[in-house]
Amino acid sequence: MKFGGTSVADIDRLNRVAARLIERAKSGDDVVAVVSAMGKVTDDLIEQAQQISPSPSKRELDMLLSTGEQVTIALLAMAIQAQGYDAISFTGSQVGIVTDAVYSKAKIVRIDAACVLAALTQKKIVVVAGFQGRTVDGQITTLGRGGSDTTAVALAAGIKADSCEIYSDVTGVFSADPRIAPKAHKIDYISYEEMLEMAASGAGVLSMRSVEFARNYDVVIHCRSSFAPPDQMGTIVKGEDPSMEDAVVSAVTHDTGEAKITIRGVPDRPGIAATVFDTLGQNNVNVDMIIQNVSDAGLTDISFTAPEADISAVSSALEVCLKDIGARTWNIDKDIAKVSIVGAGMKTHPGITARMFKTLADEGINIDLISTSPIRVSCIIAADQAEGAVRALHTAFDLDFEE
Amino acid sequence: MKFGGTSVADIDRLNRVAARLIERAKSGDDVVAVVSAMGKVTDDLIEQAQQISPSPSKRELDMLLSTGEQVTIALLAMAIQAQGYDAISFTGSQVGIVTDAVYSKAKIVRIDAACVLAALTQKKIVVVAGFQGRTVDGQITTLGRGGSDTTAVALAAGIKADSCEIYSDVTGVFSADPRIAPKAHKIDYISYEEMLEMAASGAGVLSMRSVEFARNYDVVIHCRSSFAPPDQMGTIVKGEDPSMEDAVVSAVTHDTGEAKITIRGVPDRPGIAATVFDTLGQNNVNVDMIIQNVSDAGLTDISFTAPEADISAVSSALEVCLKDIGARTWNIDKDIAKVSIVGAGMKTHPGITARMFKTLADEGINIDLISTSPIRVSCIIAADQAEGAVRALHTAFDLDFEE
Repeated sequence: MKFGGTSVADIDRLNRVAARLIERAKSGDDVVAVVSAMGKVTDDLIEQAQQISPSPSKRELDMLLSTGEQVTIALLAMAIQAQGYDAISFTGSQVGIVTDAVYSKAKIVRIDAACVLAALTQKKIVVVAGFQGRTVDGQITTLGRGGSDTTAVALAAGIKADSCEIYSDVTGVFSADPRIAPKAHKIDYISYEEMLEMAASGAGVLSMRSVEFARNYDVVIHCRSSFAPPDQMGTIVKGEDPSMEDAVVSAVTHDTGEAKITIRGVPDRPGIAATVFDTLGQNNVNVDMIIQNVSDAGLTDISFTAPEADISAVSSALEVCLKDIGARTWNIDKDIAKVSIVGAGMKTHPGITARMFKTLADEGINIDLISTSPIRVSCIIAADQAEGAVRALHTAFDLDFEE
Repeated sequence: MKFGGTSVADIDRLNRVAARLIERAKSGDDVVAVVSAMGKVTDDLIEQAQQISPSPSKRELDMLLSTGEQVTIALLAMAIQAQGYDAISFTGSQVGIVTDAVYSKAKIVRIDAACVLAALTQKKIVVVAGFQGRTVDGQITTLGRGGSDTTAVALAAGIKADSCEIYSDVTGVFSADPRIAPKAHKIDYISYEEMLEMAASGAGVLSMRSVEFARNYDVVIHCRSSFAPPDQMGTIVKGEDPSMEDAVVSAVTHDTGEAKITIRGVPDRPGIAATVFDTLGQNNVNVDMIIQNVSDAGLTDISFTAPEADISAVSSALEVCLKDIGARTWNIDKDIAKVSIVGAGMKTHPGITARMFKTLADEGINIDLISTSPIRVSCIIAADQAEGAVRALHTAFDLDFEE
């Protein structure tokens, strides 16, 4: 049972999480809780570090940030004990979450959860710090964004748990963002592949890494709400079930956190694009979609999208390489949105892409860039048309919830 | 070089400590820093725990409190790096401070400081979390009050350091509290035994445990000020030097933190006092001095002193055992002070005790209880006479500083 920072933001909420864990343990289940730092603690620690250094050592930053979850686990274990149930807390180091040595975004290489299993046989609720691990030689690492989800899934794999329940403030995975598409419905079951495509295209319920981990180790994830009653089901994420007929389209997602960069007047010679995207990669820019226009008099335009957070890295990379290339100008457009449809059944149903384009055209929405995978089609459109596009696609692909 | 919570209370002070460490490293010394939690962090964490439980599990409390020093070491390492010198931080667990499993007041059983020595050969300043360790099987422990001093001394022993410098806001150990005795002088050298007696009788510069550790492992301690210039000597605490003539009396100490408890009308039978002090011991009361008055008609009075902090434990212990004993009444007097003289030369100089009593008598000060060791004499007197007593004794034993 994994609870994020909002679910443990203060003592009252910690006490509520404790009560929930105890209720589950009393029902006869062995219970392991994975928790994040309380509320804004991680942000506060980062701010302290930045008062000292604009770019602190990542090793020392991990040393610092890992204290956030350690405070939560100690207080949560105390809260469980105060409510009359036995509990024990473990840091990522203690629980044997062994990672590589890439500080601030370490990858889990091994889990040695012997102490968790031992505590469970003693009928203790085990409370584990999310987001953190240690290297083989005992250095403290953190797993980066979404790391607590990854801890929970990895630990579930390590102890062969029946399922890994990820609690948040939403009741599950939806066919679209319910704030935009009021007829969106909660999805009961979804495959790892679909969930990965949804996470990559804007659905924020689960981190991609945790879903990848779950797929690789066949961990059943149950996304559910911290605030809903315990018997209310959320969304089960698991392997594709060959006996079930796949929905052609399971969900419509959108993402307004990207920007489109267009470079104009690029000489249309082999290797030019490679130079550009090489430089961007070296600057840690996560380029998403790329399009190169038809050449006109030996010059062409290249457009690509990247997270808005990477814009300053994009700028410094392009400043350097465009002079060498001899491109004319470049500009950044932040007023874009990516709208995607995701569905495992798409593989076997031709014509889905065409129906998406027609739906958007009928709404008077212009498509700027397109990218596809076997189970996803994404279109870049104007930001102010995103909500209409989501609603129209949700209706067009028969996702609307009917009473 | 050990710096307490006040010396690292905020980012500015951390930066100043970093500068001081770098200055020392640049002078050619290998430098290990041991630091406490910043300012009031430990108190804040305890308060959070007590919002959850009035008596939280000591294991979980240690898990919680150990984050305080971990934050300091990470930020101090960043501050050193930001000032251009290489540094690395280690928790108590990482540095191999192995303790017993008595949570909240664990005792160090072994130090495996290989990672410290390795980092020093790489010319790094090593920053270690004070106050904390781990058990043989990896549970996090804390060392209790004064624990960071003990970490520093133990680590100095473990790496065979030339000396262990304990920084605080005073310039060294004084012949009396300078706020009370303006003619008090800083002591240049003092033996472990004298320092232990001083610590036990009210001098707050060093914790008794750290001095005991230093004596057992022959670690030279240098008490000095965080704020004085680096070339200003403080007080060196080391083994007795047979070539030096001992001062008869080295210092006058006082302690107003104790209370005197008097039990009246105790039947004067063998075993009664044992029952009383057994019960007090079981209630974790640290009884200091004891006096039993002359018997009068088969009844006697017993007086003893204990820290004011233990008063509620005293009360509940006595409530229980006095009824069984059949004592008449008991009362608590907090308006007392303990005034002591300490000096290694006392052993070979008879008449010191008599001179102390005469000095106090000349000042019109009544002595309530007396206790002695080979190198200390302590008297309990009225609290409002403590300052006068300290000044008079300081003069009587020729300790006054002359220009």
